[in-house]
Amino acid sequence: MPWLNGQLLAAEAARIDPADRGFTLGDGLFETILVRDGAAVWLDRHLARLAGGSAVLGIPARFDDATLAEACATVIAAEGIAAGVLRLTVSRGVGPRGVLPPATPSPTVLIAGHAGLPPQGPVALVVARGTCRNQASPLSRVKSLNYLDAVLARREAAERGADDAVMLNTAGRVAETTIANLFARIDGAWVTPPLTEGALPGIMRAEIVTRLGAAERPLTVEDLRRAEALLLTNALSIRAVARLEGAALTAGQETAAGLRRELGLPG
Amino acid sequence: MPWLNGQLLAAEAARIDPADRGFTLGDGLFETILVRDGAAVWLDRHLARLAGGSAVLGIPARFDDATLAEACATVIAAEGIAAGVLRLTVSRGVGPRGVLPPATPSPTVLIAGHAGLPPQGPVALVVARGTCRNQASPLSRVKSLNYLDAVLARREAAERGADDAVMLNTAGRVAETTIANLFARIDGAWVTPPLTEGALPGIMRAEIVTRLGAAERPLTVEDLRRAEALLLTNALSIRAVARLEGAALTAGQETAAGLRRELGLPG
Repeated sequence: MPWLNGQLLAAEAARIDPADRGFTLGDGLFETILVRDGAAVWLDRHLARLAGGSAVLGIPARFDDATLAEACATVIAAEGIAAGVLRLTVSRGVGPRGVLPPATPSPTVLIAGHAGLPPQGPVALVVARGTCRNQASPLSRVKSLNYLDAVLARREAAERGADDAVMLNTAGRVAETTIANLFARIDGAWVTPPLTEGALPGIMRAEIVTRLGAAERPLTVEDLRRAEALLLTNALSIRAVARLEGAALTAGQETAAGLRRELGLPG
Repeated sequence: MPWLNGQLLAAEAARIDPADRGFTLGDGLFETILVRDGAAVWLDRHLARLAGGSAVLGIPARFDDATLAEACATVIAAEGIAAGVLRLTVSRGVGPRGVLPPATPSPTVLIAGHAGLPPQGPVALVVARGTCRNQASPLSRVKSLNYLDAVLARREAAERGADDAVMLNTAGRVAETTIANLFARIDGAWVTPPLTEGALPGIMRAEIVTRLGAAERPLTVEDLRRAEALLLTNALSIRAVARLEGAALTAGQETAAGLRRELGLPG
């Protein structure tokens, strides 16, 4: 039962207009929020990031944070979710034909709930060859609806027998994976690419930077190859990398498990 | 009255599912097709480009070209469009949560009609500063639903009092504008950026390359500044640039008008 523009609806009653700019142009953004013990985790941080991204895109807030928080609780209760995921999507709403946004948009706001958590186990990772992230676009720092480069890289990972793919930036350095930020332990120290490399400002990323005392610095594929351990983090999971381009990595799994315990994630 | 997945519907009856990957991830593509004298122009070329883009994204064809052609005619007749635009949108359809596409997608196919043509008059153009195109991504050569960089650049153009914006690529060279390919006459010869620079393979672009005998070569902003004339082309219009970053360009309007006459465009 999704919540759409102020109302909890039966799934089949929820309708996105075919002229919604989220559908026609990918003109919007989203948050993926962990549900644990029947409550949205770090909702304030997600709503703050959503507000920041909305400012980049020039999409006004249709609902205040208190209303959105209540709506999240309503969806969790209606779906009976103990552990799972909320997806909060905001688009610029219906617009006339053309690229220029309407002067006074009426955004579409959708909250959908999903019971169950994604896997927390070790990941087989490849480096995407087919596409890359554009760190020169402000969209690389916004969780926007323009997710097709990640879709292409994720398809490539599946074709190559992997679970996820590292996405490089246009300079050929590491940005993130299709769904996660990346941390590497190199010579005993944890490092992660800075946001300017094309990494999404993950909420879990910020948390893990603090917890691991990770340094932010540009990383090459060669750096990943010589890393002792690699971790992938997003709002829903902290996973160790078990294989990079087929080469085994044995470390990292205890660090990942320890972080999951500290943060109350399963597995 | 849009045509959606095989049916002509009243506008309010047309429903995109909130879990459609076109809405959640921008996972799809589209064509913008000129309607002249109540008929879709160059429909075969548009359907061929759609098929090429679908192959890049791995989206199977839900309807054959004959069915799509009939659907276009149905929408034109239902809307009573003499001169106007069809937008044909194909998304990967509904999918479960996550980036990985379903193994056997059921694409969403939407055809919407709009009476009336966009302006054909001279354009005030700026060079977008806020974002750029990623010529290293295969998406730069696909008319995908990931249009947010163009939306940002079009907003910037409006804020700076212009009608459209040149989008540079990550190397700082000219790719195209937010809605059109770009041709420049320099030292008496017409030139346009090659597709490898991040230019969308416009159907009108290919036609104008032939008609003007234009050469394809990389262009800098400096090249544009010293051009005698600039033309912007897309499936709906051929327009001369009247001002580039505030500097007047007087040539190009007769070339644009001549091409419009040859191709049966108004104005």
